[in-house]
Amino acid sequence: MLKDVQVQVDAWTQQFKIPYWQPLEILARLTEETGELARELNHRFGPKKKKASEDVKDVGDEMGDIIFTLACLANSQRIDLDDCWKRVMDKCYGRDKDRFEKK
Amino acid sequence: MLKDVQVQVDAWTQQFKIPYWQPLEILARLTEETGELARELNHRFGPKKKKASEDVKDVGDEMGDIIFTLACLANSQRIDLDDCWKRVMDKCYGRDKDRFEKK
Amino acid sequence: MLKDVQVQVDAWTQQFKIPYWQPLEILARLTEETGELARELNHRFGPKKKKASEDVKDVGDEMGDIIFTLACLANSQRIDLDDCWKRVMDKCYGRDKDRFEKK
Amino acid sequence: MLKDVQVQVDAWTQQFKIPYWQPLEILARLTEETGELARELNHRFGPKKKKASEDVKDVGDEMGDIIFTLACLANSQRIDLDDCWKRVMDKCYGRDKDRFEKK
Repeated sequence: MLKDVQVQVDAWTQQFKIPYWQPLEILARLTEETGELARELNHRFGPKKKKASEDVKDVGDEMGDIIFTLACLANSQRIDLDDCWKRVMDKCYGRDKDRFEKK
Repeated sequence: MLKDVQVQVDAWTQQFKIPYWQPLEILARLTEETGELARELNHRFGPKKKKASEDVKDVGDEMGDIIFTLACLANSQRIDLDDCWKRVMDKCYGRDKDRFEKK
Repeated sequence: MLKDVQVQVDAWTQQFKIPYWQPLEILARLTEETGELARELNHRFGPKKKKASEDVKDVGDEMGDIIFTLACLANSQRIDLDDCWKRVMDKCYGRDKDRFEKK
Repeated sequence: MLKDVQVQVDAWTQQFKIPYWQPLEILARLTEETGELARELNHRFGPKKKKASEDVKDVGDEMGDIIFTLACLANSQRIDLDDCWKRVMDKCYGRDKDRFEKK
């Protein structure tokens, strides 16, 4: 699943002389992209309402940029995001199985 | 690809009375998770070196939590992350095709 | 010290019908402003070098916006930032006094 | 006003061999501290309500840590935060004077 995302990112970045930035540089980019998502969400759901609430395309674009940035960080550090994802799901059904009130 | 992540998250959250928080609440959680990733990266690559650089498992765990949080936001707003991803890749091969120095 | 900042912010915001947003809305704004600072820093010190390193005015502008946002949050919750600051300094000279290698 | 904060931070950091980290390292710390503020705010005002809403001391502590981190960044780059603050206030009474609905 997430492997496909990582492979597609690597195919694009390997065209360039410097395929991946340094970890703290990628983190700064992630902070920037998270900020852009925050701005979109405040425009739509907060006090800065400027946009129709049915139009969530821009929110999705910012989420796409965050996923791209995460894939760069993962590839640069040879981290397998599907493994990470499996551990998240294991935690949900293990440690966090009664975390919220059930239906 | 990302659809599988969204489906797995929904299967877990739909057990609960309140499957998804409000958008700005999910964003606050994303900010928190991004902060935890920042701490891990500073421990490993910055001045707060506490951990062996070969051990990147904790970095991966924080990335998994960020992906989980993004999937919650996407599900709560009926956003298709594979569509968003396709637009990211289109932008890479379109607008950004000469953004960095080629090999 | 920080009291003056809080008083100046309050004098400006009290002109308006809604002087302060809700806490999670202000937090979203803080996330956005932190992202703008990240972009400036990556432009100046990271791989996206676009600007002369001697020109740090834009970095300062983003820091000013962050301080403004913090003052809004503090005022809206009747938090005294000088008290908070005193506790930070007490922590530095107490808990953290040997945290880093001395000269 | 903010000069006092900068002077106090410098007096503490100049005890150490490395008074200030690199800019992207300080930014990573700021991202971490912003995340801790987000967690506190979500505990108090969001769905993760764990704490009495009258107790905002922890929110203030996190804001103090953010101000400390900003002062480190400013000092390391020889940025005068009072100048930055003056420009923020000029923007409020200039560009943004009619930004919100007046009383």
